Amino acid sequence: MSNFISEFIGTAVLILLGGGVVANVVLNKTKGNSSGWIVITAGWAFAVFCGVIVSMPSGAHLNPAVSLCLAIAGKFSWASMATYITAQLFGAMTGAFLVWLTYKDHFDQSDAGSQLAVFSTGPAIKNPILNLISEVIGTFVLTFVILWFGTGANVQGLAALGPLPVSILVWAIGLSLGGTTGYAINPARDLGPRIMHAILPMKNKGSSDWQYALIPVAGPLIGGALAAIIFNCVQ
Amino acid sequence: MSNFISEFIGTAVLILLGGGVVANVVLNKTKGNSSGWIVITAGWAFAVFCGVIVSMPSGAHLNPAVSLCLAIAGKFSWASMATYITAQLFGAMTGAFLVWLTYKDHFDQSDAGSQLAVFSTGPAIKNPILNLISEVIGTFVLTFVILWFGTGANVQGLAALGPLPVSILVWAIGLSLGGTTGYAINPARDLGPRIMHAILPMKNKGSSDWQYALIPVAGPLIGGALAAIIFNCVQ
Amino acid sequence: MSNFISEFIGTAVLILLGGGVVANVVLNKTKGNSSGWIVITAGWAFAVFCGVIVSMPSGAHLNPAVSLCLAIAGKFSWASMATYITAQLFGAMTGAFLVWLTYKDHFDQSDAGSQLAVFSTGPAIKNPILNLISEVIGTFVLTFVILWFGTGANVQGLAALGPLPVSILVWAIGLSLGGTTGYAINPARDLGPRIMHAILPMKNKGSSDWQYALIPVAGPLIGGALAAIIFNCVQ
Amino acid sequence: MSNFISEFIGTAVLILLGGGVVANVVLNKTKGNSSGWIVITAGWAFAVFCGVIVSMPSGAHLNPAVSLCLAIAGKFSWASMATYITAQLFGAMTGAFLVWLTYKDHFDQSDAGSQLAVFSTGPAIKNPILNLISEVIGTFVLTFVILWFGTGANVQGLAALGPLPVSILVWAIGLSLGGTTGYAINPARDLGPRIMHAILPMKNKGSSDWQYALIPVAGPLIGGALAAIIFNCVQ
Repeated sequence: MSNFISEFIGTAVLILLGGGVVANVVLNKTKGNSSGWIVITAGWAFAVFCGVIVSMPSGAHLNPAVSLCLAIAGKFSWASMATYITAQLFGAMTGAFLVWLTYKDHFDQSDAGSQLAVFSTGPAIKNPILNLISEVIGTFVLTFVILWFGTGANVQGLAALGPLPVSILVWAIGLSLGGTTGYAINPARDLGPRIMHAILPMKNKGSSDWQYALIPVAGPLIGGALAAIIFNCVQ
Repeated sequence: MSNFISEFIGTAVLILLGGGVVANVVLNKTKGNSSGWIVITAGWAFAVFCGVIVSMPSGAHLNPAVSLCLAIAGKFSWASMATYITAQLFGAMTGAFLVWLTYKDHFDQSDAGSQLAVFSTGPAIKNPILNLISEVIGTFVLTFVILWFGTGANVQGLAALGPLPVSILVWAIGLSLGGTTGYAINPARDLGPRIMHAILPMKNKGSSDWQYALIPVAGPLIGGALAAIIFNCVQ
Repeated sequence: MSNFISEFIGTAVLILLGGGVVANVVLNKTKGNSSGWIVITAGWAFAVFCGVIVSMPSGAHLNPAVSLCLAIAGKFSWASMATYITAQLFGAMTGAFLVWLTYKDHFDQSDAGSQLAVFSTGPAIKNPILNLISEVIGTFVLTFVILWFGTGANVQGLAALGPLPVSILVWAIGLSLGGTTGYAINPARDLGPRIMHAILPMKNKGSSDWQYALIPVAGPLIGGALAAIIFNCVQ
Repeated sequence: MSNFISEFIGTAVLILLGGGVVANVVLNKTKGNSSGWIVITAGWAFAVFCGVIVSMPSGAHLNPAVSLCLAIAGKFSWASMATYITAQLFGAMTGAFLVWLTYKDHFDQSDAGSQLAVFSTGPAIKNPILNLISEVIGTFVLTFVILWFGTGANVQGLAALGPLPVSILVWAIGLSLGGTTGYAINPARDLGPRIMHAILPMKNKGSSDWQYALIPVAGPLIGGALAAIIFNCVQ
């Protein structure tokens, strides 16, 4: 199986389950309506768990910021970058489409703000500089800790846990650093579904908030790059 | 021990714990009353964990959609299909009986809708086509990810986690895709308890909603078949 | 280290953390006040996790129903029974004392019903027969699944998870079967703290409800015995 | 990499994620506002998970009470004590700074009590003796169980779980023993952020409550010392 298909499938599963949990919590008349932050963050953590399992052949990046970080750290070929990022973006769009299909009736009975929240992140308090910093810090933690997975005692200590450590890491970031911008920490996770939000029909659909769209793309890339640089210094 | 007894015991434990958590959350005067979606989904996830442990000799399918998927994927003998599905159905009926016995006084003090919810799933918004699609997608994710368990780096990475990966997978599906139809994703899990609901005495008992009963049987079977076909294409 | 000290320490840690989480949720003015069933059940699950770790030398029974079940199943010496059960009871009393010490000010500002709930279980709907059945079924699941830990593919599959499987099992039982009687599923866990409730001073202290005390002792013993008998039949 | 940098990075990650989850739950207008005790305790547990992973080269103490306990137990060199504790304190201060940066706008829109709660612990009911006892007992459990990790069957049983056991242990303590003083159980975790609270600018900032500051430093050190002494007796 090609790396393209592997990243595509993995990111589709990630976004189907990740977007799905937001739909379940924020859309009207769902069974998980208003079930809170523990549900949202657990849902995204386990979405990562499942996405990684079906994307093993390509190394399960599922995230352009991870691909960039690994390339800077010398652990991923720059030549494969375009393939990976394209696959991640199309995978995210496909996952978002399946969320829309699953929750179609619920989208049509919800307001514009909740609809967009299922697809893409948005800031709790609008402030471009601080929102960017939030995404930089969140993604820095994600990629910095991932880089440590393959070092020293972790190699043996984490090997038997499969995709569990990265799931717990994403759960941690959601619980602790997701309160400001909703932790995109992944350009494909935010941009792919935002494109689908613009395309797909929904009753009372509002703006796709393209004004904000740059921050959850730039922040994660900066955070991932920073993690690679600092890791190479201290390690 | 025969495969029949193994699947029977496993599915009985699955439904005793899975139905039990719904009883605890939705029936009146229980200690877990109204404790929310995280409790329901964690309960079902850990029900799978326990069901799988006691059903190891037969491979712990516990679900006709899993048996069908594995048969299509060439990993399970068609000749054993009838034995497995019969055992799963009787196991589910037995588990549902034990839930009824445990929570008997609480059933008698609850309304008809809550009573049925403990046994079988129902749609949040009635729409046969979309409800069917929900069950197809949910079961597709379940069986598709299970098929990946035995591939490449997963073989080693998941081996030491025992039944934890499949539990997390079911937790993920509940959190993310359960908001529409309540994630039957298993024909035996829905049909077996529905039959028991029709049989068992409860104060103020209402309809067993046989009109909906086909969807949580057909949807999972279609989803499992689809997963096997797509897996065989991409793998 | 003797088996007595090992069981004593393990059960003390189990009850300190298990009783502690109930204190945190039900007593007044605590930081975890009214934080719900997921907190209670997670707290007891992780209490088992920690109790087992400090009680490895004796096999970490921590529960007379487990000791009885293992003896009937031929996996534990009847000659050690009295030592184990005595240690478990004194350990539970010590754990309950430490809970009382930790939350002393909060006990003094809470009502009699909440105070007793921290120490011992009580039925949501009083009904001796059904309450007994609840404890029998809950403990049956606990001990029956434990017996399967050491069989077939589980031996390898669960070995690397240390005390995690038994913690998840107790979490499952709490979520799913704890809604009726509060899942004692352990005679020492209920009787030891009930004795301490009768002894320790608390403002506005009420009855220790000795009338109910037999059920969370007898039910678990019956459940554990039944699990051993059925396991020996089907295995 | 030096032990200093390793402890520094690990404690910074611990406090960034640990303080972050409190910020998300208690500050105004966050996405996780008022999401409850399960979120707080899960956030701190996973903060430990991540902090340990990036701090493997130095053994990941992240806590002066752990360093002290290991030294008394003969498992850590007294000569390294000053280096470790200094690194832990500066790491905690750095983590607290990053929490402040991430949630800056939210701090400025919250009251003085919530602001301090993000940085440092405080008692639910003020009572110096009982508050001290709470911190002693909480830290005793933490360090006592950690000492058992390296004994007998645990050596093999916990090896494959990497940093999961210590995370679950901290989760357990938070759920069960955190209801009184908010479980500092780590002098650096409380003192470092308290210093930052005194320094950093926030709208409507109140007192740093230095009167209480001794208890979450002394209590954990006493608890850690006690654990080492008792462990050496019973083991």
